[in-house]
Order: sequence, then C-alpha cells, then structure tokens
Amino acid sequence: MSEEKKIPYKIYLEEQEMPTSWYNVRADMKNKPAPLMNPGTHQPLTKEELAPIFCEELVDQELNDTDAYIEIPEEIRNFYKMYRPSPLVRAYCLEEKLGTPAKIYYKFEGNNTSGSHKLNSAIAQAYYAKKQGLKGVTTETGAGQWGTALSMACSYFDLDCKVYMVKVSYEQKPFRREVMRTYGATVTPSPSMTTEIGKKILAEHPGTTGSLGCAISEAVEVATQNEGYRYVLGSVLNQVLLHQSIIGLETKAALDKYGIDPDIIIGCAGGGSNLGGLIAPFMGEKLRGEKDYRIIAVEPASCPSFTRGVFAYDFCDTGMICPLAKMYTLGSSFIPSANHAGGLRFHGMSTTLSQLYHDGLMEATAVEQTAVFEAAEQFARIEGILPAPESSHAIRVAIDEALKCKETGEEKTIVFGLTGTGYFDMVAYERFHDGEMTDYIPTDEDLAKGFAGIPKFPGNEF
Amino acid sequence: MSEEKKIPYKIYLEEQEMPTSWYNVRADMKNKPAPLMNPGTHQPLTKEELAPIFCEELVDQELNDTDAYIEIPEEIRNFYKMYRPSPLVRAYCLEEKLGTPAKIYYKFEGNNTSGSHKLNSAIAQAYYAKKQGLKGVTTETGAGQWGTALSMACSYFDLDCKVYMVKVSYEQKPFRREVMRTYGATVTPSPSMTTEIGKKILAEHPGTTGSLGCAISEAVEVATQNEGYRYVLGSVLNQVLLHQSIIGLETKAALDKYGIDPDIIIGCAGGGSNLGGLIAPFMGEKLRGEKDYRIIAVEPASCPSFTRGVFAYDFCDTGMICPLAKMYTLGSSFIPSANHAGGLRFHGMSTTLSQLYHDGLMEATAVEQTAVFEAAEQFARIEGILPAPESSHAIRVAIDEALKCKETGEEKTIVFGLTGTGYFDMVAYERFHDGEMTDYIPTDEDLAKGFAGIPKFPGNEF
Repeated sequence: MSEEKKIPYKIYLEEQEMPTSWYNVRADMKNKPAPLMNPGTHQPLTKEELAPIFCEELVDQELNDTDAYIEIPEEIRNFYKMYRPSPLVRAYCLEEKLGTPAKIYYKFEGNNTSGSHKLNSAIAQAYYAKKQGLKGVTTETGAGQWGTALSMACSYFDLDCKVYMVKVSYEQKPFRREVMRTYGATVTPSPSMTTEIGKKILAEHPGTTGSLGCAISEAVEVATQNEGYRYVLGSVLNQVLLHQSIIGLETKAALDKYGIDPDIIIGCAGGGSNLGGLIAPFMGEKLRGEKDYRIIAVEPASCPSFTRGVFAYDFCDTGMICPLAKMYTLGSSFIPSANHAGGLRFHGMSTTLSQLYHDGLMEATAVEQTAVFEAAEQFARIEGILPAPESSHAIRVAIDEALKCKETGEEKTIVFGLTGTGYFDMVAYERFHDGEMTDYIPTDEDLAKGFAGIPKFPGNEF
Repeated sequence: MSEEKKIPYKIYLEEQEMPTSWYNVRADMKNKPAPLMNPGTHQPLTKEELAPIFCEELVDQELNDTDAYIEIPEEIRNFYKMYRPSPLVRAYCLEEKLGTPAKIYYKFEGNNTSGSHKLNSAIAQAYYAKKQGLKGVTTETGAGQWGTALSMACSYFDLDCKVYMVKVSYEQKPFRREVMRTYGATVTPSPSMTTEIGKKILAEHPGTTGSLGCAISEAVEVATQNEGYRYVLGSVLNQVLLHQSIIGLETKAALDKYGIDPDIIIGCAGGGSNLGGLIAPFMGEKLRGEKDYRIIAVEPASCPSFTRGVFAYDFCDTGMICPLAKMYTLGSSFIPSANHAGGLRFHGMSTTLSQLYHDGLMEATAVEQTAVFEAAEQFARIEGILPAPESSHAIRVAIDEALKCKETGEEKTIVFGLTGTGYFDMVAYERFHDGEMTDYIPTDEDLAKGFAGIPKFPGNEF
C-alpha cells in the first residue's frame, strides 16, 4: 500500500459530501421491471388503484422509471444526518487473518438503533405519510429490523405505527418488541386473530410460525380498512430500492474519494432492499456501459427465490390480497422453515432486481445457515462487529471470494454490504454455539407446492 | 449559528487526528489520589505486591502519578481504528424539542459490539496481558458491558477469558452471555459455587442477587490461584481512567476543531471509568488553572457513593480480599437493590475522582431510576439512539441543565458522555413501559450498615 494513498480503516464522508438525491436505477434500465398488476384485470395498476394502499408521493416514486435522480427532501436529509453517513470499512484485520491478497471493504449500516439499513427507507416513507396528513401506517416485520426502523421514523414524525411481526421472530426476539414499544408502536404477532386474513390462515395452518407473506396480508388489511392509514413496506418495492440507493451512493462516493475501483459487489437478498440500494449506482454504470462489476446476490438455501424460484407474476403476500408483481418467486404460499435469518424469509424478490438478474446483469448464490453462522462468528471475532444473520450471508460469500483470491493470488477488491447488527439474534447464536442449528434445504416437492399457488393466466407461463 | 462555523450533526476526527497518547490526570493533581493500601500492614502497596494480581505493565500505569502522557502502543491504536474515533454528536433535535438555547453535545461510545466505552480499556489490558505471555485473564462484569468488551479484546489477542457476572444481570441479560460466548469467553453467575469466597457469600446471603463487589472477589480468587492468569478490572482503577482518557481527548480535539468551549461536562459514575476518561483533559486544564468548567458526576440514588458515601480507605470487593482504596464508599458490604443500571451498582468510586471531588473540583448528583428511564425514552425518540440505563443518568441531568437554560435564557454549552446502548437492557425498559419500575433510595439505616463494614484503623476516621 503506497503511503500517499493510505486508506483509513473507516472512510467517512463529510456532511457536505452526502448525497442530496436518491438514484433510480430503473431510469437506466433498457428492460424496465414489469409493472405491478391488478390480480383481477391483469392490467398494470394505476396510480388511482395504488393510492388506497400507499401514500401518494410514494406511488409516484413506485411508478417512476424515467427520472434517474429524485431529490431527498430536506427533512429526510436532516434525519439522515443523525446516523449517516455510515462508514465504509476497510477490513484490514479480516484480510490479514484470511491471508488473502484481496482487499475487502464493507458498508456498515448497523450503527443506528434500528440496527440496520431499514431506517433509510422508513424515514422517507414516514415523511411522505406525514406530509399527506395521515394518522398512521401499518406494516409487517420479519426479523424486526424494519418494524424497529419504522417505529423510530413514526415516533420522529408523530405518526401512529401498527406492526405485524412474523410469529417466529416475535417469539425469538422478545426484546425487539420492547424497542418498538419504546418508540410508541403497537406490535402484534402474525398470523393473528385481529384480521380476517389472519383468522383464515390460522384456521388453515394452526401451528404456523408465520411468514412475511402472512404479515403483509394482515398489515394491508388493517391499512385499507382504517381511515387515515396507509400500508408501508420495507423491501421489494421500487420506492424502497430508491431510498436505499443512499447506501450505494455513499459507498461509491467513499470509494471514489480514494480512487478505489471494486471488482465484486456482494449483498444479502431477502426482498432486495439492501442489495438493490448497495448496487444501484454501480449497476447504473454497468447499464450505461461505463464500467463492469461482478454483482452477487446471496440468499439463504432455505428460501432460494433467485436460485430456485421462477420468474413470473405472483402475489407478494400469502393472503393474495396484494397486487401481483413479476419477480423471482417460490410462490406466495411457500412458507420457509423457521430459518433464523428472519429478514430473508420472503418468497419473492424485488421486481427491479428480478429483471436485472433475468437479464444476466447480476449473479445469485444460496448459502446454508450453519456456514453463515460460522462466517458470522469469525467476522465478529476479527472485525469486532456482531453481525445480523441476514448480513452474514454476504460475509460468507465475501470470505469465500477472498479465499479464492488467496488461491489464485488475485488482488481483487471486494465490497459487501453489512446491513446490520445481531444484538437481537442471540437466540440463533445460542443454537449455533450449542450445536443445535441445522440446515434446511427445501426439496423439489416443497418447491413444487409453492409453485402450484402461482396464478396461471396467459402471459404468465413459467 | 454563523454559516462559516456551521457545526455538523456529528464531528468525526480523521484517523490522523486521533490521540497517540493517553493522558494521566494524576500528573497534574497537586493532591494525588491516595495509594492502594495493604489491608494487613496499612502500608502503600508495592509493585511486587500488586504483580501477582495485575499485569506488570498495568501495575506501572497504576502507580504512575507523574507522567502526564503515556504513549498508546501501536497494536492498541490499530484496534482503536476499528471502532474509533467515536462521534461527538450535536444534539440539534433534542435542543429543538426541549426549546432550549443551550447547545448540547454528546460523545457516543456505543457504536461497537461491546456496546459501550469499556472496550477502550479492555483492549489495552488484554494487550499487556498478552505481551506478558499470560494464558488468560479473569474479571467481573455488572451490566455485562465490561465482560463483553473484555471477551472481544481477549478474542483479538487469543487469550482465555473467565467472566464472573453479577447474578441479577446474568438473569436479566441472557443474551449478553451469548455475545461473550461468541467471543469465546466462559461466563459464571456470581456469587457462584466455583470459588471459596462465592460459597461463603452464598452461605451468608442465600438469596443474594449479587453485586460487583462479590464478583470482583471471585474473579480475583480465580486469577491468583491459577498459573498464567491475572485479574483485570473495567473501572475504578487509575489504569482504567488512563485508558479511558481517549474519550476526553477525542472530545476535546473535536470541540477544539470547531472552537467550541463547553460550560458543563456531565458523565454517569459507577466506578468512574467513563466519567474519569471523559473529563480527563478538561480537568487537566482546570488543575493547571488554564480554564474552568462545571463537571458533574451523576450516580443512581440507589447507590449514591459520592453524594451519601464517606471518604475513607475501604475494600473494593465484598470478600475483602482486595487491596484497600481511599475513595467515596458506601462500605464493601453494601449490596444495592436490584437496580437495573447494573453498571452503576458499585459501592465505591475511583480514587482519582474521589480525590478530585473531595477537593471541590467537581460536583455530584444522584438521580432516581424512573426519572432516568423517562429521559432515556425521550432521548431515544428524539435522537434515535437507544441509550443504556447507565448512560441515561447523564442524559437526565443534561436535559435538566438544558431546561434550566431555557428558564434563564443562558446559551450554555453542555457536553455529556453517552457511554453505551441499551439493546441488552430491554427487560428494564419493559418494566418501565409496564409501570412496574420503582425507585429505591437506601435509608440512613441501610447506609449505616454498610459504613459499619469499613475497616477502622488510625488515619482512617470518617
């Protein structure tokens, strides 16, 4: 490493270097992601149809695939300043321990109370809800990170916040509920008896530990049936990827500051919020033919939407009350095993990322849980950050890529997204320590059952 | 606020601006803190007497009251770079919500996996243990922050780590244990049956929820009876305050960068590690007659060493096997109620801070638990950081001082130490939310019982 370009352990942008606009990768895509579809008419959903579910300005963002940059309102930028910019960390210690010639960087999004990157979109969605004069919002949460983030954002803008939390996470993470309560939210384990769809799911699957798909159905039902409420979602949607582009924009600005050009960009993928945000500006360069990068989505082997799913229009929720989205999906009735990486337990994937993957612009790989926790513990001990299980999927593959460099001697530059901390995942860590953690890979039969629930109509062959 | 001096939300030092030496406030004290004393001979402890308990180089630091600056070894500085510098945050949002003309800053030490400032000294102590060729170290932990920090530090230097955790915290914070396990430590609830002193304490007080004083006794016993082990402590000692001076040095450097002169400096005080570190360079200026500051120690009303204790030589541990230290103390047999602010449950106080307080160079105030949690929740909602109960003692008083400024119209600059995050304190938050939290103030009779256990000998009148 030459002295004149010595790279610090952590690259922080100055406040004035922070992005003032989000980047909308769809503007640079030749093949746009397919629009959300009305499940009754099979026609693209209009603004009018979406407005009862989502805030108006967010609907505009959802449908906007032409403007490359959308200004971040000042109120949101001020909130960002409380916990952003997040550091881009050079993993010197990890590199040394692995003995790899690779240069490893990670964008660490865990240094805020929600514990993850989710706050980036939560504050934006709460802001637009407030601006519209709403009373409150409803949502689902898996691992609890999104629910916590939204609780914080709603508390900041004095909005009511109703959270439906996937039951398995609610039980495994009792303290998550208290954090949300600290921020004034109400938290209900899903499926619950508080909604029609919850009752129906419980009647059909009495012992279910829930899924993001169920919780979405409940939250949407409550939003659409209560005056002054709208539904907000922490992943999958285009608007979420837009807000999360702050991650990638900061990452790119920090890399550019030191003239660093990454070779591989790695992110975990559940619904795509982190991955879509992290890769946005890099994918933009790739789409515009300016640069090339290897981009790798990492998903759990227990819920392998990209690597084993089909590319088709499907419901985003188990209750099938939401719009159809064209995406890589395992079927909305697919309920994954009680995988501890709660945030990655979604059956589908962002339509934007799905299109990019379909067009060969990014790769995907699935990893098993125990291998993920091995990487998590190794990383914690070496880099001093206790990672969330979700984030650790990216760590696993970053380490694997760095070890390949060790074999080949290549000095590749690897950037990965460290989306959050694992303080509320200690039950999972405990199982790992006690040797009680197992891997679960759905059989082809398991998958076939999920695929069977995907709606069949002309043009939706898969 | 003038435009040319606009202060960012967070002031980060550059890597090259980070301190390269610790500051030893004792060098500037006219009245030095009284030396540790041999409980048998009542003579100051020599290096030879301390060496079986503590690492050699740490003994040197403990006894050194003449060198103002002690260089930070490069290995420690490299570790610091993984999580430091910590941000000095301008609490713009809190100021606005309170409607105060005061300017509030906080030095946030919670952005590392140990969740607190404790790592600053843990890594230093582990380094010196490794350098001495030891197998491992033993320690006690209250709230679990110190134990976690030490586990991380030992893992980094490949040292064995045995932690005795105050039973009430062990039970209230089961996930803390898992974090320590993640870093390879063994954790035992204290008092335990694994030591002679533990057995004795359990026989005398079968239902005890433990105290730092008990846990110290157990850890010291194990260290002194196992070849290749030494005992390390996360607070109270001079060496700890020395290492923690990194907090104050960074704070001062960040303030100086923007020409900010604080009026009031506030820190929570259990054994004094954070407070002593935060105030060190400011106290130095005060001692040298260069500047004046109001310095306020905040302690829990349930364990009020400064405000209701006596200034005398006393044992640091309940088992009375440790050296005597001259400090503000409630008596080593004082076991506070199961106050949730575990880290502040120590009966004594740093000898350095005790001397400074005795000499009128700083103030102290005691606050009640429910008022502390009110401040904690208010702060969490406004500033977006979920504070540890310990840290929230400082928040309470910072808010109170800011509200006084609102009344008087004074534009005072307040700096407080936000020592850590409360992710592992959700049981306490839950009690607060459920209205089950009570305050506990020891009666004069309670205190008299504790004082009765303080050793009586000529020169130790109180």
